[in-house]
Amino acid sequence: MAKQKQLKLGAIIHGVGGNVSGWRHPEAITDASVNFGFYKQQAQKAESGKFDLVFIADGLYITEKSIPHFLNRFEPITILSALASVTSHIGLVGTLSTSYSEPFTVARQFASIDLISDGRSGWNVVTSPLEGSAKNYSKAEHPSHPERYRIANEYLEVTRGLWDSWEDDAFVRDKESGVFFDPSKLHTLNHKGEYFSVQGPLNIARSRQGQPVIFQAGASEDGRAFAAKVADAIFAGHETIEEAKAYYADIKKRVASEGRNPDEVVILPGIAPIIGRTEEEAERKYQEVASLVTIDKALDYLGRFFEHHDFSQYPLDEPFPELGEFGSNSFRSGTDKIKQTAKEKNLTLRQVALSVATPRNEFTGTPEYVADRVQAWFEENAADGFIIAAALPKGLDDFVDLVVPILQERGLYRTEYEADTLRGNLGVPVPVNRYTKKAAVAAE
Amino acid sequence: MAKQKQLKLGAIIHGVGGNVSGWRHPEAITDASVNFGFYKQQAQKAESGKFDLVFIADGLYITEKSIPHFLNRFEPITILSALASVTSHIGLVGTLSTSYSEPFTVARQFASIDLISDGRSGWNVVTSPLEGSAKNYSKAEHPSHPERYRIANEYLEVTRGLWDSWEDDAFVRDKESGVFFDPSKLHTLNHKGEYFSVQGPLNIARSRQGQPVIFQAGASEDGRAFAAKVADAIFAGHETIEEAKAYYADIKKRVASEGRNPDEVVILPGIAPIIGRTEEEAERKYQEVASLVTIDKALDYLGRFFEHHDFSQYPLDEPFPELGEFGSNSFRSGTDKIKQTAKEKNLTLRQVALSVATPRNEFTGTPEYVADRVQAWFEENAADGFIIAAALPKGLDDFVDLVVPILQERGLYRTEYEADTLRGNLGVPVPVNRYTKKAAVAAE
Repeated sequence: MAKQKQLKLGAIIHGVGGNVSGWRHPEAITDASVNFGFYKQQAQKAESGKFDLVFIADGLYITEKSIPHFLNRFEPITILSALASVTSHIGLVGTLSTSYSEPFTVARQFASIDLISDGRSGWNVVTSPLEGSAKNYSKAEHPSHPERYRIANEYLEVTRGLWDSWEDDAFVRDKESGVFFDPSKLHTLNHKGEYFSVQGPLNIARSRQGQPVIFQAGASEDGRAFAAKVADAIFAGHETIEEAKAYYADIKKRVASEGRNPDEVVILPGIAPIIGRTEEEAERKYQEVASLVTIDKALDYLGRFFEHHDFSQYPLDEPFPELGEFGSNSFRSGTDKIKQTAKEKNLTLRQVALSVATPRNEFTGTPEYVADRVQAWFEENAADGFIIAAALPKGLDDFVDLVVPILQERGLYRTEYEADTLRGNLGVPVPVNRYTKKAAVAAE
Repeated sequence: MAKQKQLKLGAIIHGVGGNVSGWRHPEAITDASVNFGFYKQQAQKAESGKFDLVFIADGLYITEKSIPHFLNRFEPITILSALASVTSHIGLVGTLSTSYSEPFTVARQFASIDLISDGRSGWNVVTSPLEGSAKNYSKAEHPSHPERYRIANEYLEVTRGLWDSWEDDAFVRDKESGVFFDPSKLHTLNHKGEYFSVQGPLNIARSRQGQPVIFQAGASEDGRAFAAKVADAIFAGHETIEEAKAYYADIKKRVASEGRNPDEVVILPGIAPIIGRTEEEAERKYQEVASLVTIDKALDYLGRFFEHHDFSQYPLDEPFPELGEFGSNSFRSGTDKIKQTAKEKNLTLRQVALSVATPRNEFTGTPEYVADRVQAWFEENAADGFIIAAALPKGLDDFVDLVVPILQERGLYRTEYEADTLRGNLGVPVPVNRYTKKAAVAAE
């Protein structure tokens, strides 16, 4: 019972991997996080699979305990721009923090990628989970979780306002008359708020998709409220279909409460499929990845979610330690989940650390099996699509070569791009310029 | 009498042009400032001419009186990154302001372009001349000219420190032992200064050229002192060879006073050659460009240098008005020069406005004549090379096709790239990592 709506797909490109020891895999390119050839190959592979988008995550603080990919990686604005000129249809989405940047600059940079790529840019709005970020940005302290979201809300008002500085038909460019633009279609924002004072106008116009697509990835209460209000797409993270369904229903309801059409916000859980020709091969591949992680590295990695807490001080094979509120100003939703799962399943510290380092998910199996799971999540309203976060060096290639054709055969997924813009492919609306809207209403 | 040293060449890519009415030229692409195809063609043309670099200028504030190119153009970080993936040898240099940005982000972005391009990035450090920029960045006021340079000095200390976070051999990446990097080769900056507190380390390593090339373009007293201290290359602006020689001698002396080798700082005046097969054709081309500018547009453009001052209030054919100190906190060196020239040559407002809108320079003539002037400036120590700022839509193409072969024949200019990195081609040294240096000294 396929939906009218088609499945959406993205690929996170994360160099040596989101995993602590993925770089040790025999097939891994060990400098992949700063290897442009690798990024280009992955983006072009995803485009050959008709993916909606590639996704670049980010962070603003490292210590020597950070995972390899975080230590030395491309910055999102630059790598997305570089990929824009070697791709033609795929969307280019990247993370940028509203807690440590200026809306005028960020609005410009995403608008510029949007014009360079002719309507394919997207911004994953984050508020920066890492406390340490403040130390790299001349700030006395990291803003609290609720304050970060208040800043983010105002920040989005500013950037969206700036993006509408120029109406779509503002540029006349008539050589004969010497009229380059129509001044009545240039608008000055004059924003004065609690955190920002930004006059405008922005020195760049809108692309064919109107404004860059807004992604959001927060799963906390504040994060969900923010997503329902501003997001066009959500990068979610769930381990089970039940969890994903509950999240999906909650977000769609919140979106409707904001007076928006729930179909116009796409929810894309990140999944890390491990694909084998047989079930046994897939399991062997999972075990190979998991075995690369030593317990020391796993404890370090776990610590990162808890403000670089030193977990080596606790006994490994006793129940996961009681941490109270600790870690709640960083990845709040992540740390809550780790603590809760540990308690519910009565896990030891070793078990928690190893499972966080190499999460096991249900997208492990033969191509048909993975396609079945994808279809089930999609049809049971757990997802509008997925972001593939490859756990293996050739994970994206396997998904594109082996799973995509099955999804296409089943009529769940495009065989050609429907549109040239990211909004067009995702099926989210082009926002009408706020000033053009006003004029149209006034004319009625 | 050719020098051992060879001439260096850059090309500024500025869409519809640095000129107020260049977009009206019959051959102009009217959306060139946001047309990636145009930027790509220009960069590849410059690369076919073995140019050292392309250059992207910038500004952070517009009004409806801004020149067309400033109203709606690509942002430098994004366009340089996009050009990185469609070029292979040419340097990628862009303007970014130290008055309205964060050193952690800017250090990362230029370092990231440097790795994407494999050692070809350069940063033109500016302090933002436009008063209005403060209004787009939630600031109560634009810092004074001297304060902007104090900020810039500290900012450069921070970014250079961050760029050395990782020693060149820090990444071991040994799959067998599981050692990804050597922690003794990762360094935390811990900068605490007057304007910035930045802990580090930076989450990206150095490229083959060590650090991005530092460009500087200020010509004021503060600007010259700053350039002598930090610049690898200087984008200068002069109308006559005498002016250029005096500037060149002054800068080289200042560089030596800083204990640096004057040969390792290259001075590149911007020139806007107009090339015709005959002298008459070149003159006709100049007149064609000049005639596109109306006096109203010329007055607007002049006003931009003086904080958007309204010059239409003065009589056109009387001496240039007395303005006192007005305009000195913006483009100080530019406004001083305009006032001084007007006084010396006893020019009317109309004459000043039209000549500022379409500056006439001595690089107008046949290819041989332009090559002669280039050679004269180079051999008489007025320049180490030039940045071509085309005044005509095909100005760069003409220079590459017609003048470059003459310079090559005369042995003044390369026929093949000497190096793959921007530092290698410019002949400026790769900065040794500060920590590696210390270790080497300690080992003696």
